[in-house]
Formats: sequence, structure tokens, C-alpha cells
Amino acid sequence: MIKVTIAGATGYTGGELIRLLINHPDIELKWLTSTSLVGDSISSVHRDLLGECSLKFTDEIGEPDALFLALGHGVSKEFLNKAAISSQCKVIDLGNDFRLDGKFGDESFAYGLSELFYEEISNSRLVANPGCFATAITLALAPLAEAGLLNNESHIHAITGSTGAGKSLGQTTHFSYREGNISIYKPFKHQHLAEIDNTLNRVSNSKIGNINMIPMKGDFTRGILASIYTEIDKEMDMESLIDLYSERYSASPFVHLSKEGISLKEVVNTNKALLHLERHGKYIHITSIIDNLLKGAAGQAVQNMNIMFGLPQDRALKLKGSAF
Amino acid sequence: MIKVTIAGATGYTGGELIRLLINHPDIELKWLTSTSLVGDSISSVHRDLLGECSLKFTDEIGEPDALFLALGHGVSKEFLNKAAISSQCKVIDLGNDFRLDGKFGDESFAYGLSELFYEEISNSRLVANPGCFATAITLALAPLAEAGLLNNESHIHAITGSTGAGKSLGQTTHFSYREGNISIYKPFKHQHLAEIDNTLNRVSNSKIGNINMIPMKGDFTRGILASIYTEIDKEMDMESLIDLYSERYSASPFVHLSKEGISLKEVVNTNKALLHLERHGKYIHITSIIDNLLKGAAGQAVQNMNIMFGLPQDRALKLKGSAF
Amino acid sequence: MIKVTIAGATGYTGGELIRLLINHPDIELKWLTSTSLVGDSISSVHRDLLGECSLKFTDEIGEPDALFLALGHGVSKEFLNKAAISSQCKVIDLGNDFRLDGKFGDESFAYGLSELFYEEISNSRLVANPGCFATAITLALAPLAEAGLLNNESHIHAITGSTGAGKSLGQTTHFSYREGNISIYKPFKHQHLAEIDNTLNRVSNSKIGNINMIPMKGDFTRGILASIYTEIDKEMDMESLIDLYSERYSASPFVHLSKEGISLKEVVNTNKALLHLERHGKYIHITSIIDNLLKGAAGQAVQNMNIMFGLPQDRALKLKGSAF
Amino acid sequence: MIKVTIAGATGYTGGELIRLLINHPDIELKWLTSTSLVGDSISSVHRDLLGECSLKFTDEIGEPDALFLALGHGVSKEFLNKAAISSQCKVIDLGNDFRLDGKFGDESFAYGLSELFYEEISNSRLVANPGCFATAITLALAPLAEAGLLNNESHIHAITGSTGAGKSLGQTTHFSYREGNISIYKPFKHQHLAEIDNTLNRVSNSKIGNINMIPMKGDFTRGILASIYTEIDKEMDMESLIDLYSERYSASPFVHLSKEGISLKEVVNTNKALLHLERHGKYIHITSIIDNLLKGAAGQAVQNMNIMFGLPQDRALKLKGSAF
Repeated sequence: MIKVTIAGATGYTGGELIRLLINHPDIELKWLTSTSLVGDSISSVHRDLLGECSLKFTDEIGEPDALFLALGHGVSKEFLNKAAISSQCKVIDLGNDFRLDGKFGDESFAYGLSELFYEEISNSRLVANPGCFATAITLALAPLAEAGLLNNESHIHAITGSTGAGKSLGQTTHFSYREGNISIYKPFKHQHLAEIDNTLNRVSNSKIGNINMIPMKGDFTRGILASIYTEIDKEMDMESLIDLYSERYSASPFVHLSKEGISLKEVVNTNKALLHLERHGKYIHITSIIDNLLKGAAGQAVQNMNIMFGLPQDRALKLKGSAF
Repeated sequence: MIKVTIAGATGYTGGELIRLLINHPDIELKWLTSTSLVGDSISSVHRDLLGECSLKFTDEIGEPDALFLALGHGVSKEFLNKAAISSQCKVIDLGNDFRLDGKFGDESFAYGLSELFYEEISNSRLVANPGCFATAITLALAPLAEAGLLNNESHIHAITGSTGAGKSLGQTTHFSYREGNISIYKPFKHQHLAEIDNTLNRVSNSKIGNINMIPMKGDFTRGILASIYTEIDKEMDMESLIDLYSERYSASPFVHLSKEGISLKEVVNTNKALLHLERHGKYIHITSIIDNLLKGAAGQAVQNMNIMFGLPQDRALKLKGSAF
Repeated sequence: MIKVTIAGATGYTGGELIRLLINHPDIELKWLTSTSLVGDSISSVHRDLLGECSLKFTDEIGEPDALFLALGHGVSKEFLNKAAISSQCKVIDLGNDFRLDGKFGDESFAYGLSELFYEEISNSRLVANPGCFATAITLALAPLAEAGLLNNESHIHAITGSTGAGKSLGQTTHFSYREGNISIYKPFKHQHLAEIDNTLNRVSNSKIGNINMIPMKGDFTRGILASIYTEIDKEMDMESLIDLYSERYSASPFVHLSKEGISLKEVVNTNKALLHLERHGKYIHITSIIDNLLKGAAGQAVQNMNIMFGLPQDRALKLKGSAF
Repeated sequence: MIKVTIAGATGYTGGELIRLLINHPDIELKWLTSTSLVGDSISSVHRDLLGECSLKFTDEIGEPDALFLALGHGVSKEFLNKAAISSQCKVIDLGNDFRLDGKFGDESFAYGLSELFYEEISNSRLVANPGCFATAITLALAPLAEAGLLNNESHIHAITGSTGAGKSLGQTTHFSYREGNISIYKPFKHQHLAEIDNTLNRVSNSKIGNINMIPMKGDFTRGILASIYTEIDKEMDMESLIDLYSERYSASPFVHLSKEGISLKEVVNTNKALLHLERHGKYIHITSIIDNLLKGAAGQAVQNMNIMFGLPQDRALKLKGSAF
């Protein structure tokens, strides 16, 4: 059994990691850390886990074989520097500390977009889990980038649920404000843009075009829908495009191409990413949907852990979607 | 023109008062107070008022003819004791300081349930505006109480929207928590129970039965639906009951009896209260719906102001419902 | 491997059965029937199953070891009379045809409230799965009934999500109507009342009190929250009550007692039922929550199938809740 | 008093017209037509109007001074050809029959985008009310077009509420589907594109760039948020742009420029349009919000009627927003 610590187990992604790992047959969930709630039962915070998890929050990191960091952005590096963790312990960081520059001492964090960097992840002790927008958008554009077709600007609007903003209280996550409301934030300058640009240039053999991204806040809790279009060579007809994407993701249990238009709830509460392609004149239009907390965070983290330990990548990730 | 001050103009009820009063033809909205935002424009807080209201928050009470107190519960009495207000200024308190015991120096606050105490309100300088649950439930039961038919226990569940909890941030008004969620709070001991009991006993010639009330928190922003049943004399058939209620509210522009079943949105963004009656065996079942911020707060406050100043009670209150 | 047929696989409960059974290790899902969509892929209807289920709808019942009937109320009996099914095939009916009177030829349907009739279910070939409201309310009141404490009237309001009304289109499930709306339907006369009354009298050694139930339609998709109170003997203090309930459900992996107040989403997308008890004067107040499509339908059906086949009752039912 | 007929008064826009016109001091609402519900009370369909409107549906057009056509797209022309209406009667068509080609016999329909064609509307007997997306997007881009700055492609995503799809039942307006869901429809080919292109070219002195528009379906009932960017001359700095827009709409009671970012609910249940501008590199980014049923339909129709009759254009349109 793989002994697991989740550092920062009180937040949304921490909670999702627990929900996934209590049903993972190869895992023993042992240490769930919190700074403020040491000694409290897990279900006092994650109330839906009543009857399913009898652990308590601790301030010990313990002696894990795998360590998940769900600490909030900018905290992981400091944590790792201070913490006394075995040099054998595999680490998956869900923050953004190591996504752009993976250097950590003599080692490096692999960028954990499971479908693009499977080999590298499987050989790494350290993995930086991608951001949620970055996951949805990079999966949608990577086949084009790899084929050298992503030379023009991409035009993206991507709408996210409230859980993307985490658990802390704020005016824009107040129910009375958010319900029935839609807004735009950080247009053209979301922090995931660098991540997306980085990855797509890495998999492309030529410089990719500029990525324009307008993030939107939706009045739902879970999920990201990204709507993307970019101009591509007229010779790439729909059939060729569908072949390109189908082949690219044929080995993935989680990424699928839909012939029909897709809607966000088709992936909510699953680790899947669904893509839909259409050609409109000079543009290819791609719709990409994920659950921001699963394929966009905790689910992909567990997927990466599975890969790092040589387990089937969908172990404990065949989830019943909520569908409605 | 009646010069108006709203003390506490930054909250939800303060905002609703502004939205109503900027379109009131007999009113000049002059002083909108805030402790923390003095000098800021009204629309910086109530963003939907951009282009409709160019006032700024002030810390002056001014010299109003009418003063609305939207200060939060327990603050009004202290405010009035300190504030230098003309003894001619009419005061409508939207807090709960004077609802149960209206005494204030030598004067008394009238209880501002407009349909029950019209005469008293019209002759009062001081009015305590009822609570939202109290309004929905008391309107539903008052005709029975007045007819001496409310001798048995009442069984009530009443569900409220998130705006009932005000603007302050908290776990149960976080969108990620509240969306798609339902919960119960303060069963059998909501603070409005005393208010309801007080009023119904006052209008009844006999001791009324016990009021059992379970408040519920709904996943919507506006409105209260109260579902009430109580055992009544078998001789009161439906026809007699409908006559009783129809006559009771025949003079009201806002309270109506629906022959068909009703749903909450039929009153949202209006000052109306709709009632629906059915008999089931020994019980009469009453559904009562209001908008908690309007008939349950700011709307009724303006209705009371109209009555106090001898204006038609629906002045500035013929509102377009949102309907959807 | 247990070969399974789902008759009526296009509806909401049919879809949920598929979502559960594709991950059941002892099951081979073979025949999914539809009258109108024969030959279409499952994922053309249940779009979230893209990449997870490659079966097609058929009009063949096949030769199943277990047959789930998800046909709509009043259709199951006729279906069974016509269908050529082996007399060995175990049948779980999710309609209401056999809930009150389980007789079918020489055999009888067991009433499939798993926690109350485990033995009977495990020995039955035929099981009638309970209604969703019936499940939530009966689980809440059964310990009192069994202890002979349910002699007084019960006062119940129970709010349900839109999926309770099924897939067919109607005015009250139109999004523009339902969003932000609350209404009451069938007060005092919901069809599940007879089922509840029947079961509680059966487990009680004395005649139980009258059950008053007001169903409410909520503006969410999944879940039922029932709020119940009834007068009980003053000698039963909270400690005794908590002991009573805790012991009653100590063997169940799905029914748990919460010391803290509960909210609906704590069970959404799981097969759990959570109960919370409080005493208020002469009344005990019970809150009971389930997911109407899982513990209230498809989940309990699979639980019953597990029991009927001697499998652990939580096989394929350790579901990750959606939580948010 | 202006006598008014609404042809097609049972739908969403018909209902909104009634809600607006019952409070219009210069209007007498006389004939509300329906084909199927003749004789039924208005409030039997528009249930929120109970106590506010005692009219009944009729099949008579009557002898109106103003006729609103809320008949559904493609029906208005046929209706006008058949109907015996006085040649003095002013007509406002809310369908799309006359938006692109306004010819009707010897006369022409003016295109009723009130802020752009005020003079023409005020001199017309016939007005074609714009589409909802067209209103939101054209108001956002018209100042650029008029200034000859709209020469490059525009990139638009615009999300709409469920009421945009009307009252008829369908899978994508079923609550169980729509709640918490987001989808894309008719990318690059929404029927309003021609309308937008037409209008912008008309007000521009040079050929405008191509308009790329991705419509999205949101999980809310009311409102459209359009997010638009286009490349403009670097010499146009923010200050110049803000001046351009502020001046353009300085005379309008409904169109306002917000310095702060905006969110959809700031206009819900009002006739306002709010715009927000930002410059990001070579692009200007514009957010535009309206209530699709008001400024996007019934509200603008009443605004146009006011203009046609020489009344203040905001008569009966100073609406209390729902805000929450």
C-alpha cells in the first residue's frame, strides 16, 4: 500500500483528493494536514464525508510514499524547503510554484499534463499539476501545435465555476451576487496564459501564434468550458482534423472527441475532457470541457500519481458523473 | 417634496430603498449614510444604479422629513438616541429594535404590517417595519386569528432566499456551498416567532394556538414561500374561507388570493403578497409568498411611508416583477 | 459475471443504473432496451457516457440474470406479463406497480427498502424498489415506529429536485419557470404516502399516527430534503434517541446520523442517507437527506441487487459525491 | 390615451410588454390577442400579474393607435397582410420579418435600435425592433463603426439566458439539463449576424471588418453579456475611446459607460445597456450587457413607441432592477 499525505487537506482540492483516494485500492490515506484544524475530524470540514472517512487533521507530514501539496499558490516551494520528507517520496504539487520553472535543487518537476507528458511523468519523482484553464485549453490546442498548425492567433473565451476561486469568502463568490450572474475577469492576462504558451511552444516545432484568452465567471459551481478558434490551413479538412485529434488521444481513457456538440455537465464530477471540433470558413472552432476540480486539479493529480507508481492511470478515477 | 434620509444605505435593504425612492415622485432622496464609504458614489456599491443615481454616501443625517433606518438589528435604538433628528421627522425602522416593544421615550413605534394596522400607521410618527418571515406568515394567518379560528397549533415551513441573510460574507452564503443546496436553521426558535405570535394574539379575541415554524434556506436569492397548515372548525368550508380572506384583503393593492396554486417567482421583485388556500381533511393549508426584500423589508417600508404621509400606499410600488 | 438487462434505459433512472453498473465488477451490462431508439448508441442519449459505454439500445430483453425495470409507473406489471423471462431471473422494479401490493402470480415482490428488509430482500427473486420520498421519510421514522414511539401525527415538508419529475418536458420543469422558483404540489396526497404508511405500520407493533406531508418543488436538480417532526414521549431524551437511531443503522454503510445540522448537497451523487435529530419541546425534529436518483432510485436498486446476489451491499456504490 | 393592441400576448415578450404597459400613464392597454386562449384571463398565463391586470385574451385586433407584434419570427408579415388595421396605426414588430429588409408595400420599417436611429424612428409609422444579441453587440461597436475604426475582425462571445429561447419546451431548456450547464450554439452563423453587419456598415463610412460571433447558452433566465474585441489603431488611447463612447451615448437615458468592470445582473430587469472598455495591446475589449427581454425586446419596443408618439423615451421604463 502506498502511504499518502495530503498537505493542505481543508480546501476544495484537498477535499477532492480525499474523496478520490478513500476509494483507491492501492492507497492508504494516512496524514491529512491542516494548520488551524489539527485534531478535528475530516468530516467536520468536508461534511459529505461523514461515514466515509474517520481520519482527523494533523500537523504531521508523516512518512508518506506520495505527498500531495494542496497548499495554495506560492506556498509549496517554501513548504518543501522546510519539510523533512524522504528523498524517495513522490511529490505532486497542485499549486503553481513549479509549473513554469520546474527546478527544485538538483531535481526538476515534470509538468503533469498527463496526456502530453506521460513518459516524463512516469519517470519523475516530482510533478507540477497543471492549472485548470491550462488543462482545458492545452488539451484542445496541443494536437494542432504538435502538427505545426498553430501559427495564427487563438481566440478564446473560457468560463469557469465558482469552485475555481477556492473556499475563501469574497464578494464575487457571495451567492446573492453570483447566482444568475456572469462576468469577465483578467482579460488577456490570466496567469495560466504563460503556462499554456509554454506547453504549446514546447510540443510544437515552430513558434505558436498569440493566445488571446478572456476568462469568464459563471453561475455554476463546477466545470470549465473553453471555446477556442484559430485560423488554420485550408487543406486541413474536417476529416483530417478529426483523425488528428482521434489518434492523438486514442490511448487516453479520459480525453474523447465528440461528433456532436457538447455541454459542460457531460464531464462534471468526472476526470474526463471532451472536445468537439467544427470548421467555419478559415477557422477551426474547438469546444473543450473539463471539471475544474478533477481533470483540472485533484483528478489529474491522482492520474499523475497512478502514472508515477506504474498503476493504471484510471485507477480510482472511473467516476460516476453527476450528469444533471 | 419629502426630503428623505436613509441611514445605512450600503446594505441590501438600503439599496432596495434607493431603487424604490429614486422613482418616487413625491420624494427627494437627499442623505444616504454610511460609516465606511463616505464620499463614494452610490453606484460604486449598488452597481446596478449606474446612470440612475448620482448621489454620494455621507455621514450626515441631514434634515429629513422621513428617515429610514436600515442599520442592522440592535443598532437603531442607539442611533436614535444619539442622532439629532427633528421631533417632526417621521421614522421607519427596518431593524427589529422596536417590533416587540415599541416604546421609545414618550412615544411608541407602530408595528408596520401595513394591511393590519393601516390606521395606526397613518397616525404614527414612528413605525417599526416587520420582519420578512413575520410578514409572510402573519398575512397568511391574520384573517383566521381575527375570526377567532386560530386556536390550534400551526405547522409552518418557510423557505427564504440568500438575500435574507444580508450582505456579509459567510460559509452558508458562499456560492459553492449554497448553489443546489437546501438546509434548515433555527427550527422552532426563529426570532420572528415572537413577532408573529405577538401580532396574531393582538388581532385575535382569543388565545391563538402554538406556532411551530421551521425556516429553510433555499438556493435562490429573493423571496419567501411559507407553507402553513392548522386545524380549523369543520363548519368553515372553502367558500367561507375564501370569502373571509377575499374580504379581509379587498382594500389592499398588494395582497391577493389566488385560486390556483402559486409559485414563488410570481411575486419576486414586487411588493405583492399572494395567498393560496386549500382544505385537506381537518386542516386548512395556506401558501404565502412575498419578496423578502420588498414586501418583507424595503417595499413595505415605503408603503408605510406613503401611509404616514397620506399618499396612495402603492406610490412608487407598482413594480414590474421579474417573472422569470 | 451477472448478466444484466435494463428495460427502459433511456430515462433518468435508466441512465443512472448504467452509470453505476458499468463500474460494477461482478456485472456484465448486456441489454439496454428502448422502444424508440433501437440501434442508437447509449451515449447519444446519455451524453456524459461518451467514451465509457459503447453499447447500443436494443428491443431485446435478452437472457439476463438480473432485470431492472425502469419503465415508468404502471407499466412494469404489463411488461412482466408479456416478457419471456427465465423464472430464475431476479427482477428489481423501479416503478410503483408492486410497492403496495407485491403479489405477482404465485410470487411476491419484497419491498426493497434495503435497511429495513435486508433479509427478505436477500431471499427474494422479485424486489419492488421504494419511491424517493418514501425512502427519505421512512428511513427517518422507522426507528421510532419500531420502538412503538410513532403514535402521534407526523408533520412533514419534503423538497425535491427537478429530476424527480423525470425527463419529459413540462411547464414546471422549464428552466425559465423553475430557476429561482419554489412551489408546492399534491399537499397531503402524494402517492408515496400510502407506501410510507404501509411500511411504518408494518414495522411498528402499534398503529402509527397520521402522516401529513407537503411535497415541495425546489430549484435544483438532485436530492430530497425531508423535514419532519412528531410529538414523542418526554422520557425519550436526546441521548436515548441518538442511541436508538445509531444502533438501528449501525450495520448500514449508507445511513448515518449527523450530530451537526445537515445540508442537502452532503449526499448528492451518493447512495447515502443522512439523518439529523433535535428535540424541541414535545417534538422530535428529524432532517433526512438523500439523492433522489440514487438512494431514492437507481442506487438503492443496485444495493438491492447486491443483496439479492449475496454481494457486499456497497459494491459499485462507493461513489464520489459532488460536494459542491 | 393611446389605445394599444399586443398581438401574441401569451409569450415571454408579450408578457413583458403587458408588465411594462400596465404602468404606462399614456397608454390604454385594450386588446391582447391569442389564438388558443381567447376568453382566458391574462393572469392565468402570466401568473405574476394576478391583481394587476384584469383583461382577458381576445382574438380581436381592435382599433389600436399602436400595435405590437409579438408573434414569433416569420409570422408578422403574413399577419399584417391579413389584418385590417388602420393606416394611421403605428406598428412595432418584435419579430425578425422586417429587420433586414424593411419594405412593406409602399412603406418601410425603420430599424428600431433606439439610440442609433432616433430620428428615423420618430418619423416612422412602422418599426422593426432589433434582435437581442444584435442590440447588445451593435450598441457596443457602433461608436467604433461611426468613427471609421471598425476595419478589422471582431471576436465575440455572447452568452444568453434561457428566456431568449422563448416559452416552448425543448431539451435544452429543461431545468435538469440547463441548470449548471453551459453550451455553444450556432457558432459563426447566428441569425443576428446579418442584422449586426447590416447596421454597422450602415453607420460606418467604410466597410467594417468581419464579425465572428460565438453564442453561448447560460444557466440563468435573463440577460445577455457580450464580450468583444477588435484591433484598433494604436493612436486611439483609452481616453479618446472613453470620450468617443461617452459622447455618443450622452443623450441616452439607458446606455451608460462603466469605468469599473461590469456583471450581468447590473442590468437585469431594466431597459439599460452598460458598456465597459479596456485596451489590451492592439485590441480594444468591450463588455456589453442588456436584459434580453427588455432592452433586447419588450423594453426597447416600448422605448420606440415612446419615440414614435413624441413621449419621453423612458416613459414607463424607469424600472427597478432586480439587482440580486
